[in-house]
Amino acid sequence: MLTNPRATRVKAVRALGRRSVRERAHRFVADGPQSVREVLRFSPATAVEVYVDAETAQRHADLLEQARAADVPVHDCTAQVLAELADTQHPQGILAVCRPVDVPLDDALDAVVEPTAGFVVVLAQVRDPGNAGTVLRGADAAGARAVIVTDSSVDLYNPKVVRSTAGSLWHLPVVVGAPLESVIDGCRRRGIAVLAADGAGEVLLPDADLHGPHAWVMGNEAWGLPHELRDRCDEVVRVPIHGHAESLNLAMAATICLYASAAAQTPVKSTASRR
Amino acid sequence: MLTNPRATRVKAVRALGRRSVRERAHRFVADGPQSVREVLRFSPATAVEVYVDAETAQRHADLLEQARAADVPVHDCTAQVLAELADTQHPQGILAVCRPVDVPLDDALDAVVEPTAGFVVVLAQVRDPGNAGTVLRGADAAGARAVIVTDSSVDLYNPKVVRSTAGSLWHLPVVVGAPLESVIDGCRRRGIAVLAADGAGEVLLPDADLHGPHAWVMGNEAWGLPHELRDRCDEVVRVPIHGHAESLNLAMAATICLYASAAAQTPVKSTASRR
Repeated sequence: MLTNPRATRVKAVRALGRRSVRERAHRFVADGPQSVREVLRFSPATAVEVYVDAETAQRHADLLEQARAADVPVHDCTAQVLAELADTQHPQGILAVCRPVDVPLDDALDAVVEPTAGFVVVLAQVRDPGNAGTVLRGADAAGARAVIVTDSSVDLYNPKVVRSTAGSLWHLPVVVGAPLESVIDGCRRRGIAVLAADGAGEVLLPDADLHGPHAWVMGNEAWGLPHELRDRCDEVVRVPIHGHAESLNLAMAATICLYASAAAQTPVKSTASRR
Repeated sequence: MLTNPRATRVKAVRALGRRSVRERAHRFVADGPQSVREVLRFSPATAVEVYVDAETAQRHADLLEQARAADVPVHDCTAQVLAELADTQHPQGILAVCRPVDVPLDDALDAVVEPTAGFVVVLAQVRDPGNAGTVLRGADAAGARAVIVTDSSVDLYNPKVVRSTAGSLWHLPVVVGAPLESVIDGCRRRGIAVLAADGAGEVLLPDADLHGPHAWVMGNEAWGLPHELRDRCDEVVRVPIHGHAESLNLAMAATICLYASAAAQTPVKSTASRR
């Protein structure tokens, strides 16, 4: 039982809240039962250790069972230690220290053309952790083959990003730190159409051809995509705005685009209508 | 020039951060240049007064022009007073005290059937301010005729809701505090189909008939719609989940549903494809 909130080990986990420390240590924190469940379920080999307080250990005995089955050490600690470990105002009683899960760019892009045509989302210069995580969750739900985060974006292993993915971080291949140039080059080589989603686009989303393999490039929350990058894309597509709204926020625009891709590529499994 | 952050007038505006005070005073606060611009542009008669600090007055001279043109008094104040007025960690240098803009339920529902078939979104028991505001913004962008917030939901005039609507609060009719029962009855009388959006739905979104007038009922973030309310709806529709994600968040699910409605009802204005 860990009882000392000032122990070196506690401080070391807490320090993973900082990007530089995460990058040096090749570790990050999955906070809360949902994240811990998903890492243990989808990527148990990347879970290094689990910390849990007594109350949560009782409430989520299944999680500890899962951890033990995967040979992941579980450390019991006081609620005070757990609060110190988690870089959040609302500690959730359990967290896992994890290894990064990102894959090489080529692997992710290969998955967009094989075995069938698929789609991928590229976050270029996205800075807001909540937006990044929400897009990742939406990409998972829409059935994207991968999520690519470029080198000038928020860190995918930032605790706020991890939390807002609601576990989707472990559900599909992610790439971090790829320069957008390399992403575009890799798409070209594989015949993947590169679509920029931007309010300044000339093609309306319902007019975009989403049947073949394609990549959605989403720019920064505030200033969109720089001209020179937009010009390198095959098409600049905009979500139609029907009312007086100036724009949609990034996560919403991305989700609408990704669901349009899903609709174009997924045969609808019709269920009986109740009407 | 207002210089005393402890003045009664300053405290009175600050107190509008509390729901009970807003309801008693029939006033709320629109914080930041975007909100102030939209209230002055779309609903100037509901703007009571504007507070601005010197720097912002210079940067947004157009807003003050707009305010004067609409006979809305502008009060210069120090940055310190402005920080005290705004119920936020990041005061934006300008705010307006406003009158509520909500309309009667019947007016909003009439707008769903006249002059042509349209759609409306109903937030039932939505508690998160950011979700409510984002749904309102998405409803505006998708071209919904109105937004209805039921009696057990977050207050639409909560500063966080107002901020996250990004000005859409003033773009389309909103109804607050309607009991869901009355909303459903009003829809029945007008031939408006009532569609519950719920992960437990039997009808997949692509199979839903969205051509006629309809209302989307969105339940609570955590527990969805209660059974007895779901049973009163004509259909329970779910957004298809293709990957391993458990669900979409409320704002994303709502936006996808509303854009599906827009796609079904809006003739696409085709633009020349660049391909």
